[in-house]
Amino acid sequence: MNIEIINTGSELLLGRVLNTHQQWLCRELADAGYEVRRQVAIADTGEAIQEAVKEAMARAELIIVTGGLGPTSDDITRDKIADLLEVDLHEDPEVVEHVRQFFLRRKRPMPERTRIQAMVPDGAEVIKNHHGTAPGLVIPAGKSCLVMLPGPPRELHPMFENQILPIIHDRFPQAGGFASVTLKSTGVGESLMEEMLNEPLKELVAEGLVVGFCARTGEVDIRLAANGEGSEDLVSRAEVITREIGKEHIYGSEDEILEQKVVELLAAQGKTLALAESCTGGYIGHRITNVSGASAVLMCGLVTYSNEAKQRLLGVKTATLEAHGAVSEPVAKEMAEGALREAGTDFAISVTGIAGPTGGTDEKPVGTVYVGLATKSSTIAKHRINSFDRETFKFVTAQQALELLRQELVG
Amino acid sequence: MNIEIINTGSELLLGRVLNTHQQWLCRELADAGYEVRRQVAIADTGEAIQEAVKEAMARAELIIVTGGLGPTSDDITRDKIADLLEVDLHEDPEVVEHVRQFFLRRKRPMPERTRIQAMVPDGAEVIKNHHGTAPGLVIPAGKSCLVMLPGPPRELHPMFENQILPIIHDRFPQAGGFASVTLKSTGVGESLMEEMLNEPLKELVAEGLVVGFCARTGEVDIRLAANGEGSEDLVSRAEVITREIGKEHIYGSEDEILEQKVVELLAAQGKTLALAESCTGGYIGHRITNVSGASAVLMCGLVTYSNEAKQRLLGVKTATLEAHGAVSEPVAKEMAEGALREAGTDFAISVTGIAGPTGGTDEKPVGTVYVGLATKSSTIAKHRINSFDRETFKFVTAQQALELLRQELVG
Repeated sequence: MNIEIINTGSELLLGRVLNTHQQWLCRELADAGYEVRRQVAIADTGEAIQEAVKEAMARAELIIVTGGLGPTSDDITRDKIADLLEVDLHEDPEVVEHVRQFFLRRKRPMPERTRIQAMVPDGAEVIKNHHGTAPGLVIPAGKSCLVMLPGPPRELHPMFENQILPIIHDRFPQAGGFASVTLKSTGVGESLMEEMLNEPLKELVAEGLVVGFCARTGEVDIRLAANGEGSEDLVSRAEVITREIGKEHIYGSEDEILEQKVVELLAAQGKTLALAESCTGGYIGHRITNVSGASAVLMCGLVTYSNEAKQRLLGVKTATLEAHGAVSEPVAKEMAEGALREAGTDFAISVTGIAGPTGGTDEKPVGTVYVGLATKSSTIAKHRINSFDRETFKFVTAQQALELLRQELVG
Repeated sequence: MNIEIINTGSELLLGRVLNTHQQWLCRELADAGYEVRRQVAIADTGEAIQEAVKEAMARAELIIVTGGLGPTSDDITRDKIADLLEVDLHEDPEVVEHVRQFFLRRKRPMPERTRIQAMVPDGAEVIKNHHGTAPGLVIPAGKSCLVMLPGPPRELHPMFENQILPIIHDRFPQAGGFASVTLKSTGVGESLMEEMLNEPLKELVAEGLVVGFCARTGEVDIRLAANGEGSEDLVSRAEVITREIGKEHIYGSEDEILEQKVVELLAAQGKTLALAESCTGGYIGHRITNVSGASAVLMCGLVTYSNEAKQRLLGVKTATLEAHGAVSEPVAKEMAEGALREAGTDFAISVTGIAGPTGGTDEKPVGTVYVGLATKSSTIAKHRINSFDRETFKFVTAQQALELLRQELVG
């Protein structure tokens, strides 16, 4: 089966925004057993849109077009595709009502131009946009099936997952089945993980299992997949082996993220958490509060960027700061203990380090960090060196702090 | 002039890696006054590569192909393009020597396979790779000029900037110049901004000014560009008009981000900041501490997720919480005042709201937020409704809080 993605948007070709849709859609489709053959980015001009769609129609069974469904003058995807397919547009009263409600809920006047989003090509199936105004559209295009999706990721992602993927599965069923699982790990490198799994999975690979590793910052994904008869069984046997071998490092599967796992574990055990962040500047709190339900477990976070704040808010001792410096194991411990005491929680995690690019010394280079964990009975702190750019440093450090707590919670 | 980019790599179409070359190359070219008309990503197969190059040759004066020049078995770009152009390959002794030296300097044996990178299509200009082994290649392809670049960014970026761009300028000189500026705004929607600017920029558009809007969450970019004689002057006149009309909302230009602007303004005025975050959970602190130099202005952040924390750490009154609820104007004000008092700073910003998906009521729906700002002389709080998914809610709310402070700082 041949799938092509067409991303419209002049801002893409001017390099103003990063085309994240390409990766996201390709990955979603690959995880569902479909492979994209070609992705094209073009400007918001009628000529470019029509040319790209026409070319894709000659090759692809499924064409996914993103962007250009909004209310501004450069949103012309809907019109130009209707024109190419020689169908008329009509106003859909349900969409008009949806747009009206959208603005009503936000207590904002509905700009007249937004009404254009209710124009639907004849013969198109309307896919309701639960997170915005412009609906998605599914329309036959010659022998192909053409899907139009709104550009904003917060609208595109849920629409694709919940409304479009089921349509694709329905129209393009897979012969003999397909199975895949992605296991997520942290705290171990890609090559080491590969080395650990190579031998134990060898026999299953001979049976048709496909093993893929994807290393990203502070994480390694392990993807197990198979096609055809018996693929479910093959992948599930591989999953058992992989989970056993990687049990120390595998924290979840598919889209699960570490902070979500930590919140779930805390909630299940009825425990509470406080944070004492220095160099991560609130980023751990941000990640934890991205998880719905975090309010049941996170009591407070203390972002003590200055030494004065470490003393005043967390009770870190002047003597400790003077003897060891702010970036040290004793300070990390006192920060965690201070947060635990102040907030009266079951756990507190702390981080203190040098994010850079400046502030490093020979003894404590940029990237030096101490990650602490206090419980009601003990306190530990680990030393790490995370030599990365500032944002990567914060991500990896947060990852290590969350993993320290997860290890404690899974015992 | 018509430029097309072809990115090769099966990992792109499986969604395993993000295609950053597309944005990077498009932006480099746009900033040099050239516009890419189309970008295509294809798998590492001979058929896909030849088909994409053949199509581009029919349309583009300049074709840039990335990836597939290395030594492994899926690096077939060079061969397949030579085959398509019906030219032979020969071994270039200078490249062989370069590869040999590369391994010698790293005290590693030269794998025999790496020698394949010295194979050069007849008629191609060899572009030395100062950061790796595979050279870039520039070759005539029908009426087009075709450039092949190595995939790794640390090789591609310097090669493109220092060696390829001068060749492009030389072969495709620009008549009369090019100018562009991108202004960044927040707090106003794309359609409203377009409406505000349409009339005042009308005359300049008639003279050849190109105005583009790019809306992202909580931000709108305004790009002003022009080609040919007098383009500098045209764009600079447009910039004056746009900055005047959008002055309330335009906070910077090009790559500037709001948190950077806020840190710069605070540092320039020698002022300090404290944060009191509830529903943003540390995200404002995270954004501010992403800016190098934030430690000079940010004293501390108090993430008071629970009511108890709001009372204990910020001194929010029980009576206020009982009378108005945690998500209310009086609580936002007391939070900001508490942080200012606790930290002894010049400014404190606070946020309290309902991120959702649960926790909303009829009176205070999900998305309700109060953003507060305390100074030494006064306190204000603004009511907003940000009906988005959780992460977007946090971004937009942080944006509003930062903008509230920026407005105060620019006076």
